[in-house]
Amino acid sequence: MRAFFLLTLIFLLIYPISAQDLNNRYQKLSVQIVKTALADQKGYQLLRDLCAIGPRLSGYPTSYQAVDWCATQLDSLGCDRIWLHSVMIPRWIRGQAEEAFLTSTRHHNPEKLEIAALGGSIGTPENGISAEVLEVHTFEELQEKAEQARGKIIFFNRPFDQTVLYSFAGYGGAVNQRTQGAVEAAKVGALASIVRSVTSFDDNVPHTGVMYYKEGITKIPAAAIGVQDANKLSDALRDDPRLKVTLKLSCENLPEEESYNVIGEIKGTKYPQEVIVVAAHLDAWDKGDGAHDDGAGCAQSMEVLYLLSKLGLKPSRTIRCVLFMDEEQQQTGAKAYGYYASYAPEKHLAAIESDRGGFTPRGFNVTADSVIIDRMQDWLPYLKNASIDWIRRGGSGPDIARIKNATALIGYVPDGQRYFDYHHSANDVVEAVHPRELELGSAAMTILTYLISEEGLELDIRR
Amino acid sequence: MRAFFLLTLIFLLIYPISAQDLNNRYQKLSVQIVKTALADQKGYQLLRDLCAIGPRLSGYPTSYQAVDWCATQLDSLGCDRIWLHSVMIPRWIRGQAEEAFLTSTRHHNPEKLEIAALGGSIGTPENGISAEVLEVHTFEELQEKAEQARGKIIFFNRPFDQTVLYSFAGYGGAVNQRTQGAVEAAKVGALASIVRSVTSFDDNVPHTGVMYYKEGITKIPAAAIGVQDANKLSDALRDDPRLKVTLKLSCENLPEEESYNVIGEIKGTKYPQEVIVVAAHLDAWDKGDGAHDDGAGCAQSMEVLYLLSKLGLKPSRTIRCVLFMDEEQQQTGAKAYGYYASYAPEKHLAAIESDRGGFTPRGFNVTADSVIIDRMQDWLPYLKNASIDWIRRGGSGPDIARIKNATALIGYVPDGQRYFDYHHSANDVVEAVHPRELELGSAAMTILTYLISEEGLELDIRR
Repeated sequence: MRAFFLLTLIFLLIYPISAQDLNNRYQKLSVQIVKTALADQKGYQLLRDLCAIGPRLSGYPTSYQAVDWCATQLDSLGCDRIWLHSVMIPRWIRGQAEEAFLTSTRHHNPEKLEIAALGGSIGTPENGISAEVLEVHTFEELQEKAEQARGKIIFFNRPFDQTVLYSFAGYGGAVNQRTQGAVEAAKVGALASIVRSVTSFDDNVPHTGVMYYKEGITKIPAAAIGVQDANKLSDALRDDPRLKVTLKLSCENLPEEESYNVIGEIKGTKYPQEVIVVAAHLDAWDKGDGAHDDGAGCAQSMEVLYLLSKLGLKPSRTIRCVLFMDEEQQQTGAKAYGYYASYAPEKHLAAIESDRGGFTPRGFNVTADSVIIDRMQDWLPYLKNASIDWIRRGGSGPDIARIKNATALIGYVPDGQRYFDYHHSANDVVEAVHPRELELGSAAMTILTYLISEEGLELDIRR
Repeated sequence: MRAFFLLTLIFLLIYPISAQDLNNRYQKLSVQIVKTALADQKGYQLLRDLCAIGPRLSGYPTSYQAVDWCATQLDSLGCDRIWLHSVMIPRWIRGQAEEAFLTSTRHHNPEKLEIAALGGSIGTPENGISAEVLEVHTFEELQEKAEQARGKIIFFNRPFDQTVLYSFAGYGGAVNQRTQGAVEAAKVGALASIVRSVTSFDDNVPHTGVMYYKEGITKIPAAAIGVQDANKLSDALRDDPRLKVTLKLSCENLPEEESYNVIGEIKGTKYPQEVIVVAAHLDAWDKGDGAHDDGAGCAQSMEVLYLLSKLGLKPSRTIRCVLFMDEEQQQTGAKAYGYYASYAPEKHLAAIESDRGGFTPRGFNVTADSVIIDRMQDWLPYLKNASIDWIRRGGSGPDIARIKNATALIGYVPDGQRYFDYHHSANDVVEAVHPRELELGSAAMTILTYLISEEGLELDIRR
C-alpha cells in the first residue's frame, strides 16, 4: 500500500509534468528548426550549387560530378558514414540533332516546331523521317484510325486536364501518350510518334520524360512538342491534312554503366540499428537544371542532416540521407536500395521522400498501419510551425516505395499547382524555386524525422 | 399517436434522405465550381485586362478608366444593379523626378541608388536634398542618436524578418519604418527619410507604400530603397561615415477628389435584404500592375458572380461585389461603405475579402461568434475541393473590417510565402500570378459565398 501510494505520488509529481515538458520541448524545437531553415537558407545554397554542376541525367559526365559533390557535402554535414551504393544504370543520350519542321502546300517555307526527344527513344536516320501526320487523342482513336496510320507520324494531342484540383491527376491523365505512344503507334505501322507536352503551362517549351519500348514491337523514334506548337500543328492539319512533318533526332541508347546512389548517415545514439531514410532522386532530365525535379528534394534531404547538426540534436535512431540515381528512367537506384534493405541487418523504421517540387508545404502522405498514421497526426501541432496542415493515408514516393519492409513510407506533399509548368523542361531552373518555400519543406521534413527518431513508430504503443 | 407515427415515418423517409441529398448536391456543386473556374479561367482574363488598363492609384486618370471598366464587366456578368459609390479620395502623384545617388570621398563618381517615393510624401526642392546619412534600425536607436540626426538623412535599415512562418508578421515587424519613419526623423531634426524596402525578396526593386505625417511635426520627404542598395549604402557608410546622399523627388499631394467604389449585385431570390459582400480593393500602387495587390482580389470577386451565373445558380440572398477605392492610402472607400452599411435598410450577413494575393488557397480567417465559425467548419468537406484546409478565427480584410454590423467578416487566406516579393513594387505584374492558383481562390470564395447564401448564418441554428 505504501509502495502504491509512493508510486502514485511519483507519477502525479513527475509524469504529467514531463509529458508537458516534452510537448513544450518539441514545440520550441520545431519553431527553432523553422527559424534556422529560413535564416540560414542552407538548402537553397545547396540547390543553387547542385544546379550549377550541370545536367544530372544518369550516365552524363556531370551526373558523376554531382555524385561526388553530394558525397563531399554529406561529409561536411558531419555524417558518420558515407557510401556510394553501386547501381547499373541505363544510358540514354540526347545527342546533337533535335529538330522538327512542318511543310505544307499552304506555306512557302518549312515551319520550325519546338521539340525534345523522349528519354529512351532511338534516333532517326541522319536525314530524318519525313511523313504525313495523323492526329489522335487516345489509343482507342488510334485503333479506330489504324488503317490511316501506316507510314505516318502519329501526333498524340490529348491535353493535360486543367480542371482537376490535383495537378498530378492532370498529369496522370495524359502521360500514357508519352510513355506508351511509340509502342501503340508502331503497332499500327507508324514511323514515329510526337506527343503534346504533358504540362499545365501554356508556353512553347517542350517537356521531355521517359518512354518505353516493348519486346517484339518495332522501335520508332518519339519526341514531345511544345503545347503552342501542338496547337499550331493541329490547326495546320485542319487546313492541310496532307502536310508533312520532318523529324530529326540523334539520341541513342548506349550500353548500361555503373553509377551510384549517394548515401550519408548520422548514427543513432540509442537505436543505431533503426533507420529513418530521408530521400530524393539525384538524376534529372537534361533540358533544365532539374531544380524542382528533384534538386529541391536532394537539397532538402541533405538539409535535414544540416539542421539536426546545427541545432546540436543527436538523434536516437539513425538518420540516413539517400539520394537515388536513375529515378527518371528505370528506377534502378531505388530497386538496388530496396534489395539492400531487404537483407540489411537493420530495421527500416521510416522513409520520407521529397519528389513533388520545392513548393510551400501542405502535408504528408503516409503508407502505414492506421494506428501509426493516427499517432503521427498527434504531431500536427509541431508540424504546423512549418506550414503542414495534414497527415493522411496516401502514396509515398517513387524511390522509397521499393523499401517494402519499412514500417512507414512517407511522401512529402508541397503545394502542386505550378509543378507541371516546370517539370522535365527547360523551365525547371533554380530561379523557379522560392527560397522560403523550399526551406519550409526542409523544416517540415526535419521536424517529422526527429519526432520519429525520438518517439519511434511502435504499433504497441497504443494497442 | 397515429399522427406521431405518421410524422416519424415521414421524418424517417424524407429527412435523412434530403439532408444527404443536400450534402451530395453541395459536394457536386463545389466540384463543378472548381472545374468551371479552372476550365474557363475567367478570373485570369479579367485580371489580365484590368492590369492592361494602367496604374490604379486613387485619382490617377487610369484609375477612373478602371472604375468604368469594372462597372462594364459587372454589367456583362448579369448584375441586377450596379452603382458607383462616391467617395472623396486623397490624391498623391509621384511626378517625374525620382532619383538618389551617393557621393563619397572613396568613389570617383556618384553612385545611383534605386528608390521610390513613399505614397503621401512631399517632394524635395528641385535640386534635391543632399546630406550626410545616419543609419538606424529602430526608433529607439534613433532617439539614442538624436544628437547626430540634425540636418541628416535618416536611413532606416531594419530588415524584414525572414525567419517567421507568416510573411505578414515579417512585414508587420518592419513596416513602421516606412509608415512613421519620416515623422520620427523629423522630430530629431532630420531632412529626409530613406527606408529599406519592406520585402522578402533579395533584389534591388524598391517597394513603395503609404507613409503618414503628423499634425505639428515638420513634413520631410520619404522614399524606399531597394534592399541590395540598402546593403550597399550600409557598407559604404562603414567605409565612409561622412558620405552624402542626394535625394530628388517631385511627388506631391493634390487636393482631394471624387472617386468611386464600384459595386454590382445579384439580388437574392428569397432574402434580397440579406447581403453577402465579396470584396477587394481596386486601387493599387503605381510601380507595377497591382496584380497580386489587389487586382487578383478584384478579379476573384467579380468571378464569384460569373461562376454563379455560369452554373445557373440563383442565390437566395443578395451577392454584392464591392471593389473599394483607396485602400492603399486612407481607406476612404472602406469608411464610406462602412458608413453606408450602418444605415442601409438591409442586413449585411457576411463579407469576404481577398487581399492577400492570388496564390493557392489555404483557408479562411473569420471574425464572428464561435458558433458561426463552428458551423462554417462543417463546410470544409466542400471547400477542400478548392484546396481550403481550414477555417479559423482571425482578422478579415482591411476594407470589410469597416462593416461593423456584419454577422461574419471573412478573410480569404492563400499561401503567403511569395507575397512580399511582389507587394507594392514593379515586380507585381500579371505574369507573377499563376492562373490555376488564382482560379482556385475564386472557386473557394464562390463555394463559401453560395453556402452562406443558401444556409444562412443564424446563431439559433444550434443553440
